[in-house]
Amino acid sequence: MFENKNTSNTNISELGEFGLIDHLTKNFKIKQKTTVKGIGDDAAVLSCDSSEEIVVTTDMLVEGVHFDLSYMPLKHLGYKAVVVNLSDVFAMSAEATQITVSIGVSNRFPVEALEELYEGIHTAANFYNIDVIGGDTTSSKTGLVISITAIGRVTKGTAVYRDTAKETDLLVVSGDLGAAYLGLQILEREKKVFEVNPQSQPDLDAYTYLIERQLKPEARKDIPKLLSDLEVTPTAMIDISDGLSSEILHICKQSKVGCNLYEDKIPLDQQVISTCEEFKLDSTTIALSGGEDYELLFTVKMEDFPKIKGNPNLSIIGHITSEKEGVNLITRGNEKIPLIARGWTSFKK
Amino acid sequence: MFENKNTSNTNISELGEFGLIDHLTKNFKIKQKTTVKGIGDDAAVLSCDSSEEIVVTTDMLVEGVHFDLSYMPLKHLGYKAVVVNLSDVFAMSAEATQITVSIGVSNRFPVEALEELYEGIHTAANFYNIDVIGGDTTSSKTGLVISITAIGRVTKGTAVYRDTAKETDLLVVSGDLGAAYLGLQILEREKKVFEVNPQSQPDLDAYTYLIERQLKPEARKDIPKLLSDLEVTPTAMIDISDGLSSEILHICKQSKVGCNLYEDKIPLDQQVISTCEEFKLDSTTIALSGGEDYELLFTVKMEDFPKIKGNPNLSIIGHITSEKEGVNLITRGNEKIPLIARGWTSFKK
Repeated sequence: MFENKNTSNTNISELGEFGLIDHLTKNFKIKQKTTVKGIGDDAAVLSCDSSEEIVVTTDMLVEGVHFDLSYMPLKHLGYKAVVVNLSDVFAMSAEATQITVSIGVSNRFPVEALEELYEGIHTAANFYNIDVIGGDTTSSKTGLVISITAIGRVTKGTAVYRDTAKETDLLVVSGDLGAAYLGLQILEREKKVFEVNPQSQPDLDAYTYLIERQLKPEARKDIPKLLSDLEVTPTAMIDISDGLSSEILHICKQSKVGCNLYEDKIPLDQQVISTCEEFKLDSTTIALSGGEDYELLFTVKMEDFPKIKGNPNLSIIGHITSEKEGVNLITRGNEKIPLIARGWTSFKK
Repeated sequence: MFENKNTSNTNISELGEFGLIDHLTKNFKIKQKTTVKGIGDDAAVLSCDSSEEIVVTTDMLVEGVHFDLSYMPLKHLGYKAVVVNLSDVFAMSAEATQITVSIGVSNRFPVEALEELYEGIHTAANFYNIDVIGGDTTSSKTGLVISITAIGRVTKGTAVYRDTAKETDLLVVSGDLGAAYLGLQILEREKKVFEVNPQSQPDLDAYTYLIERQLKPEARKDIPKLLSDLEVTPTAMIDISDGLSSEILHICKQSKVGCNLYEDKIPLDQQVISTCEEFKLDSTTIALSGGEDYELLFTVKMEDFPKIKGNPNLSIIGHITSEKEGVNLITRGNEKIPLIARGWTSFKK
């Protein structure tokens, strides 16, 4: 997992900045009918339709802060960098259509490394049916920096915001939580083992789901469609990048409401439960604060309960209360504890 | 010029990632009617109009590669980072409307430094009447990285591309060339003097225009409007970020045409001429390869000559030929020399 598989090493400066961009993007084909002009001019050009609105979101990933190349293959990194941004588009209930990709990279990366990174970006663009319409490739003094801007479309007036949850709404989350964080812990542990003994053969069979959630997350493109099929309109929505508690607090603060979250309703994969036992970690804490789940957290009207309940993709984990009741975790022991944000932050205290 | 004026030092981690974004963007007001939702959700939301197209462009600036904080004040850097992107929007003949701003910053920067940077961004956003609709603020292991995506609007079908220049078209450039590059040389020289003798008082009166062009460039928002007022539609357009020769070659290669550029027509400011003499530099080389001018280079039909000639903002510097004639510089001595790109590249050979 940690070996360098590069067999050749072409120096980036041999291609130059324009040659590099041409080289890396030559296989990118335009798929979206709204892309009038993609890569190759001062700016990309997109068509507009008065019945729609455009959504725009951006995220920056920094080496040593958001990823560690000793266990994150570049191809996976490229894929994940796209997913992280698309998750924000889907959290608006919008369709993702285009991205721009800017990369700052030091000369220590050969062209072949960037090809791998772009292969991951390309794979994600194909899977999510989006166009790469522009970007910038520049040198950096030290690490790798990836900045992606994602663009999407939504029928006018139907974007779902964070500040529109109402009292008595149900709180719902897609998928399960905590796995990506635990995947990172496993990878960090294996890195340490590898540093001590490079000949060790790690047995990661018990953690495959966790590692996959960390290294190759997917964005929930399917959820807005599922809700539409179920004829459910979310009243508020956000994606879970920093951890469940942080995102619940965002919705509650911006919607000026409170919330009761039920500990026993938080969806956990069996590998999360068993690994938490192994690591002596509290699985609720991991789900609340782990982050990087890229699931969607949303609220729906109470009357939509019959449409949602029992759906294997969705878990009803709480309900919205009045603001003065606060934001609380109702524990398995039926204790009420105020929820605080201990989500991931890149600025360590 | 090189002193640190920060009187207080608030550590970034004291505010945290969300607190920091809130703090830095709290004075940003929405000015564009097309901004439905700005900062504060998973994504910004923009309105659409079927009579328009959207343009999107992005640029990344990296400390130590694109700027040196020892002579680039953070406020100017913020301003310039916006300008660099808007220049690409204007080069499409579009109106700039929104930007997103992502920043990677190490803990060595206090909050007050980021406030200065954002003050520059804010000043540029006000001057160019654009909205800051989103972004990301994250930690970096070493230097400062700024990634901006700019969004603009253009009446459907009227975006001006690089690949549409035609034989016999006139080649026109706005403003004058080479000053920003010379400004950088002056600042580099003063930095060295300062390192040897911190008490030295530099006399920069002879270089004020050059330094201003380097530290506080403007994007030519006025040129698309001027051309519209003159009833001139450019046949192709590009902005000059890497140097005149590089941009001419882009237009010629993409339009499949040749070009004759006349050395004696290249517009130079008097400070460029005198400083080139002082530094024993060839002013034509500086104009061709210096870069960072953020002027607009465009082609117009020959019949538009009367509308353009004599305009103090515009210089006719050559004409488009057939592709087989090549891309040439016609020197003052009437020699024909093939033009080669020696534009700025961040990947040094």
